[in-house]
Amino acid sequence: MKSLDDLFMHFLRDIYYAERQLLKALPKMAKNAQVPALKEAFTAHREETVHQVERLKQVFEHLGKPAKGVPCEAIKGLIEEAEEVIGDSEAGPVRDAGLIACGQAVEHYEMARYGALIGWAQAGGHKDVIGLLQQTLDEEKKADRLLNDLAVKQINKSASVTAKAA
Amino acid sequence: MKSLDDLFMHFLRDIYYAERQLLKALPKMAKNAQVPALKEAFTAHREETVHQVERLKQVFEHLGKPAKGVPCEAIKGLIEEAEEVIGDSEAGPVRDAGLIACGQAVEHYEMARYGALIGWAQAGGHKDVIGLLQQTLDEEKKADRLLNDLAVKQINKSASVTAKAA
Repeated sequence: MKSLDDLFMHFLRDIYYAERQLLKALPKMAKNAQVPALKEAFTAHREETVHQVERLKQVFEHLGKPAKGVPCEAIKGLIEEAEEVIGDSEAGPVRDAGLIACGQAVEHYEMARYGALIGWAQAGGHKDVIGLLQQTLDEEKKADRLLNDLAVKQINKSASVTAKAA
Repeated sequence: MKSLDDLFMHFLRDIYYAERQLLKALPKMAKNAQVPALKEAFTAHREETVHQVERLKQVFEHLGKPAKGVPCEAIKGLIEEAEEVIGDSEAGPVRDAGLIACGQAVEHYEMARYGALIGWAQAGGHKDVIGLLQQTLDEEKKADRLLNDLAVKQINKSASVTAKAA
């Protein structure tokens, strides 16, 4: 990586790989969530992710490069943690609370990645792709807020009652 | 994981492991950064991390449990990405820009974790540890903002010039 362009391309491939992994992981998270609003949040975000992958393909196209991922250990780890929560819990509010935490960690990872890419696009010569990246960043922030609201307003309380009943 | 307490303990051990891994990773990031302000940011955050580990020990103590980590694949992946950037670049603004992106991804991971723990502490019976967790969360947010400022105001521009010169 000798230039800002090289760095941009490496992290673009990293997030492209990550988004495509999430296409596979989100349905599993939706399936294992119990509260309908959380199932719906994961399902809706899976749909959004389809469009986010499309936007990344457009970014690659703008840059005249083939859309190609590079394995990203961080997203593998984040998805593994969600699988651990599913494996170590039963369906219900405690698992739902854990899945929200895992989902928010994924959203935060994506926020960091898109934030860096936008900064580099602004500093370098890729101002034409900023809009595409910003649109996705806004969606990730919104998804994080939605998960947070579900936790704070509903699911954490239910999980806390489960704790007392157990 | 049958209760919110179980979930809290699992994620507390996860972030305890993560912070201790960062104690080892941050000096390497500082050593490989070139811009003095970035070296200083990583070094200062390493010092902060020492206190964050101490605070986590206090949380374990409040809960009457031994301070113990559980391996966290996400942080391993995040640190591995920083090592990749170091391995694939030479000292200079491009590597610095990459290291900032990796550092911000770590801060975002920690924000998600501490945010979840605080939410669970508020919903459950651990209101006495909220202050300790909040203090660290505030530090992580501040560290993220500092890295972002360094990128936007200084390092991305230098990296962009490197790109043109290359």
